[in-house]
Amino acid sequence: MNKGFASDNNSGIHPAILKGIENANQGHVKGYGDDPYTQKAIQRFKEKFGEETEVFFVFNGTGANVLGLTTVTQSFNSIICAETAHIEEDECGAPEKFSGCKLLPVEPENGKLTPESVKHHLKGFDFEHHSQPKVISISQVTEMGTVYQPDEIKALANLAHSNNMLLHMDGARIANAAVALDMDFKSFTKDCGVDVLSFGGTKNGMMMGEAVLFFTPELTVNTKYIRKQSMQLYSKMRFVGAQFLAYFDNDLWKETATHANKMAKLLEAEVSKIPEIKITQQVEANGVFAQVPKKIIAPLQEHFFFYPWNEFKGEVRWMTSFDTTETEIYEFVQLIKNLLHTNSK
Amino acid sequence: MNKGFASDNNSGIHPAILKGIENANQGHVKGYGDDPYTQKAIQRFKEKFGEETEVFFVFNGTGANVLGLTTVTQSFNSIICAETAHIEEDECGAPEKFSGCKLLPVEPENGKLTPESVKHHLKGFDFEHHSQPKVISISQVTEMGTVYQPDEIKALANLAHSNNMLLHMDGARIANAAVALDMDFKSFTKDCGVDVLSFGGTKNGMMMGEAVLFFTPELTVNTKYIRKQSMQLYSKMRFVGAQFLAYFDNDLWKETATHANKMAKLLEAEVSKIPEIKITQQVEANGVFAQVPKKIIAPLQEHFFFYPWNEFKGEVRWMTSFDTTETEIYEFVQLIKNLLHTNSK
Amino acid sequence: MNKGFASDNNSGIHPAILKGIENANQGHVKGYGDDPYTQKAIQRFKEKFGEETEVFFVFNGTGANVLGLTTVTQSFNSIICAETAHIEEDECGAPEKFSGCKLLPVEPENGKLTPESVKHHLKGFDFEHHSQPKVISISQVTEMGTVYQPDEIKALANLAHSNNMLLHMDGARIANAAVALDMDFKSFTKDCGVDVLSFGGTKNGMMMGEAVLFFTPELTVNTKYIRKQSMQLYSKMRFVGAQFLAYFDNDLWKETATHANKMAKLLEAEVSKIPEIKITQQVEANGVFAQVPKKIIAPLQEHFFFYPWNEFKGEVRWMTSFDTTETEIYEFVQLIKNLLHTNSK
Amino acid sequence: MNKGFASDNNSGIHPAILKGIENANQGHVKGYGDDPYTQKAIQRFKEKFGEETEVFFVFNGTGANVLGLTTVTQSFNSIICAETAHIEEDECGAPEKFSGCKLLPVEPENGKLTPESVKHHLKGFDFEHHSQPKVISISQVTEMGTVYQPDEIKALANLAHSNNMLLHMDGARIANAAVALDMDFKSFTKDCGVDVLSFGGTKNGMMMGEAVLFFTPELTVNTKYIRKQSMQLYSKMRFVGAQFLAYFDNDLWKETATHANKMAKLLEAEVSKIPEIKITQQVEANGVFAQVPKKIIAPLQEHFFFYPWNEFKGEVRWMTSFDTTETEIYEFVQLIKNLLHTNSK
Repeated sequence: MNKGFASDNNSGIHPAILKGIENANQGHVKGYGDDPYTQKAIQRFKEKFGEETEVFFVFNGTGANVLGLTTVTQSFNSIICAETAHIEEDECGAPEKFSGCKLLPVEPENGKLTPESVKHHLKGFDFEHHSQPKVISISQVTEMGTVYQPDEIKALANLAHSNNMLLHMDGARIANAAVALDMDFKSFTKDCGVDVLSFGGTKNGMMMGEAVLFFTPELTVNTKYIRKQSMQLYSKMRFVGAQFLAYFDNDLWKETATHANKMAKLLEAEVSKIPEIKITQQVEANGVFAQVPKKIIAPLQEHFFFYPWNEFKGEVRWMTSFDTTETEIYEFVQLIKNLLHTNSK
Repeated sequence: MNKGFASDNNSGIHPAILKGIENANQGHVKGYGDDPYTQKAIQRFKEKFGEETEVFFVFNGTGANVLGLTTVTQSFNSIICAETAHIEEDECGAPEKFSGCKLLPVEPENGKLTPESVKHHLKGFDFEHHSQPKVISISQVTEMGTVYQPDEIKALANLAHSNNMLLHMDGARIANAAVALDMDFKSFTKDCGVDVLSFGGTKNGMMMGEAVLFFTPELTVNTKYIRKQSMQLYSKMRFVGAQFLAYFDNDLWKETATHANKMAKLLEAEVSKIPEIKITQQVEANGVFAQVPKKIIAPLQEHFFFYPWNEFKGEVRWMTSFDTTETEIYEFVQLIKNLLHTNSK
Repeated sequence: MNKGFASDNNSGIHPAILKGIENANQGHVKGYGDDPYTQKAIQRFKEKFGEETEVFFVFNGTGANVLGLTTVTQSFNSIICAETAHIEEDECGAPEKFSGCKLLPVEPENGKLTPESVKHHLKGFDFEHHSQPKVISISQVTEMGTVYQPDEIKALANLAHSNNMLLHMDGARIANAAVALDMDFKSFTKDCGVDVLSFGGTKNGMMMGEAVLFFTPELTVNTKYIRKQSMQLYSKMRFVGAQFLAYFDNDLWKETATHANKMAKLLEAEVSKIPEIKITQQVEANGVFAQVPKKIIAPLQEHFFFYPWNEFKGEVRWMTSFDTTETEIYEFVQLIKNLLHTNSK
Repeated sequence: MNKGFASDNNSGIHPAILKGIENANQGHVKGYGDDPYTQKAIQRFKEKFGEETEVFFVFNGTGANVLGLTTVTQSFNSIICAETAHIEEDECGAPEKFSGCKLLPVEPENGKLTPESVKHHLKGFDFEHHSQPKVISISQVTEMGTVYQPDEIKALANLAHSNNMLLHMDGARIANAAVALDMDFKSFTKDCGVDVLSFGGTKNGMMMGEAVLFFTPELTVNTKYIRKQSMQLYSKMRFVGAQFLAYFDNDLWKETATHANKMAKLLEAEVSKIPEIKITQQVEANGVFAQVPKKIIAPLQEHFFFYPWNEFKGEVRWMTSFDTTETEIYEFVQLIKNLLHTNSK
């Protein structure tokens, strides 16, 4: 099977990204980032986020989150996040293992934290028995496919900063958020008070590679050592740099994310017409969550792979990506209809 | 500068490997290794090492070593290695941080451990005050460019096993060793008693990606969780699988390693003719170590980048790779001669 | 100030325990537990819990919990506990730091977990992205002063075991629970399916020292190393052994815990007569939780120290101990009345 | 058996220390150090070491070392120590596990480090692949029973500081060193440039309890959290404070250490007369190291327990303590003679 809605990382490499890798495959360059491709890519990030931004490339999203969080915490700190956050649910405890910190999960609303919902964790400051709260971590796009509005981010940043804490954003799908908000990257991150950002590329057409961005250079005195010790320092780093260069050229990222988001809207529109299916989250980026009659899930997965989200509720998750086609979506919807029809007979 | 002898990872991607990536860039496949490319690549390893071999792909060499060592240890164990070992010198403490173990460095002879040199660490068994020795770790090729003979490996494996310990091999340059020994991979690893093997690809023409091999399946019950928690689980894993497929096709690995080793021999032969330069290690694979008059090091590095090895002794390291050319070597040697001549005037 | 209801660990050493220390202070004995006092104390535990029980003495309650949990987990596991659990709220992240595990807090009812409330965390088994659930941890007495009934413990043990998990009990106040239940220790721990038990002494009249009990010897193959590496191996261990001997002699533990529980009941009875005070938890052991007019908290603390419990709600915690006197309680209650009277004028 | 030369921690509690515990056993005081005994004891340390000294009590020597080292390092640092150091040999990897750091062992001369012997580890600064050297750690008295002279300490401190590193001293037997040097504590620690000091009491007559001293208050911003997270925060801390008060009263520490050192000298003098026994280390404090005919070791241990030190060499270690008697030493020496005589027949 080579179709599906399992995850935007089931897709391959966008041809322009692969071309970027090829172009960088010329002769020898120094390893570990001291090469022109990496340096140029870092410069691109600085153009977008401000000259004082510090940029560290890593292999994957878990590595990005762990590097960002470990840089700004000590092991006696705690990190507040949504129960559904990738760092809580999908990283097999890497943040705890590597940073030593406690994670404090909060039940989200629409996948989001609010100042109100995190407030009960802002306690025990200066009390040595209590893990010291240091970071609020949000995901943009959230794991529920919703998108934080700038004001929502600002409110969380203000709450964090007024408690001497920092705001971390897991931007594994940050391009999809930018498109959904119709904003440039900086406007809803740094400008809203985000301190540390995992900037994802893999889920939007890159082969691999993420960037960790810090908007306060003083935070990063030791980040290079932490990156190495966390096994995230890539020897032939030019090939991540080259990918990001291609990703930013001609706003490729926008084109791919726009397409993915559009496909999710199309999928939402089509399945909404099927009465047996209930859309369970607002579709704001490239994910569609739905309650589906349990009996059709397995046969549907035979043709289009996707993941169950909440097995208790029969909720599933469908992700679209830069290479999802309208044809696939119509085929998929038709198959749902057929299966429902067949099963109901 | 795009020439040099800094490291075999300053080279780019072998064209056949890049072609392998391109070929795998077709449609969607499941992430995290449940795809045909990864599965086929694992099968290739099994063909080479035996059906019961368990194979885990990771991003880089440090990740490979840490995953292998963490899988077979608990935090109260110790790991014996050479003072020059990559896990001791070049991983910024990742093995200690992630496994919790103590590393016990031993002064090597020609870069190698011997039963005699490690024996004094085989003590304190069952004594709760003492980190419990669990692993002997060797590098093949060693960090000094030398190659363990099969009998040397067997002797260390026997010593390890007779103490209820395991033998780990860091095979970042395993292809260069195979070529140097003129043996297949299995004959000097599993057949000699190696239990855990970091099988490197990046330093011999791959873009990224290493494999961790375990020759006793029972050891790997939890390895998949450890890989995820150590941030080494690649979402689009097919692109590592595809690289290894290309790497093994037509014995590409042998062609590239043979060339690199040959270039090192040529370099050795040429610099040996220069009386001011002293080769300090036996050249058995693709590394040449030499004492060089200090005054020429900096000007030489301006044209051909390489690393100092032991600054106290004026020892430098020159690595050759799959794409080193004879021309480069002759240019390099000529430049040395020019600089010596200039400087001595 | 030398009175108060801050914690049962604000009390000193029961005279009989101190006598036990003095008696053991004779000549030299081997260190680290290989002495007759420690061995006899271990034997006493075996008499109470069964011959196959494995016993490890440690310094304090956090050490006991961490040793117990680390022994039975690996870093990719998760541990389910109440939001109010000591391991979640009061150990500054020691369990995460040392075991590497994720803690999954659950909102408790009356301080307790139920099969229903933990069930949503029993997911993701065998899925490498997800921390693998391994332990359900309960506190007996709970941090809210309530006591699990044997059937409640059995139900949690059954749920744990049917998921290949274990049940851990933090018994920092286990003597108070035994008295409250009017049962021997074994009947509501091992006999109900508890696998690992932190058996506390410090809060019931000992100077320091806790025991970690494992009811399945196979679990403890490595516990001695973990104890040492977690800095919990006491050189002059005889003085913990001697304390436990005195603690069990003539059922001293029962006398002290009975008294403490009785004093809590008296305190509850007396403050219940004051309309401005609302008891917020069932008083089943030696803790009384109450909502108190905020204005009297600070002046009250000047004479009798105690901790606020939930500052948002004005809830405070009063703990009684083996040496709390009726006079103190009447003085305290009178002071509350005076302060309320004064303040309301 | 209640005699022996196994360790100074096989002894019990000095009567005056026990009396101190009894005296502090009055009523309730706040837990965790906020009590008059702890506060007075801290004040005593400040009188001895300077007002700006920061003092943290912990349970044991391993805890003291780990708290001191973790406070001043990050996980990517390295710590240089003697191969024989307690932190390297006898803590089951606790420093690595808890701090995440790499330990770099150095072969000592007479149990000591010298600037010359550590210098080869002072490299790789600012190089992200290399664990960053941060601490030189020495033991005073050394594990070989020798004592650093003030000038030797100063030289190591200067070397450390000139490399932006710190000097840590494991003073498990610091009283024995003070007596051997005939100096007050401050003169050979803080005044010589020591930055962090584990100040031991248990091996010189205390029941338990050690202090970690930092001579630069800025270092300790987070130490209280680290102490709690490392399971070293004692609830009834007054009983450590009270012990230190008794320990310093009337210079009890000096009396006990003087006696122990004197007994070691006596033992040295007596065994030196036996030709079959070879003293292997200078006897400068309370330890005697000797090569002894292997055949008499086991029978000797039946009557006087002690530990083998280096089984390869037949070297044993005899420690004297505050309560060692001359009679014991004469009995012991006589027994050696008898056994040699018997065996040689």
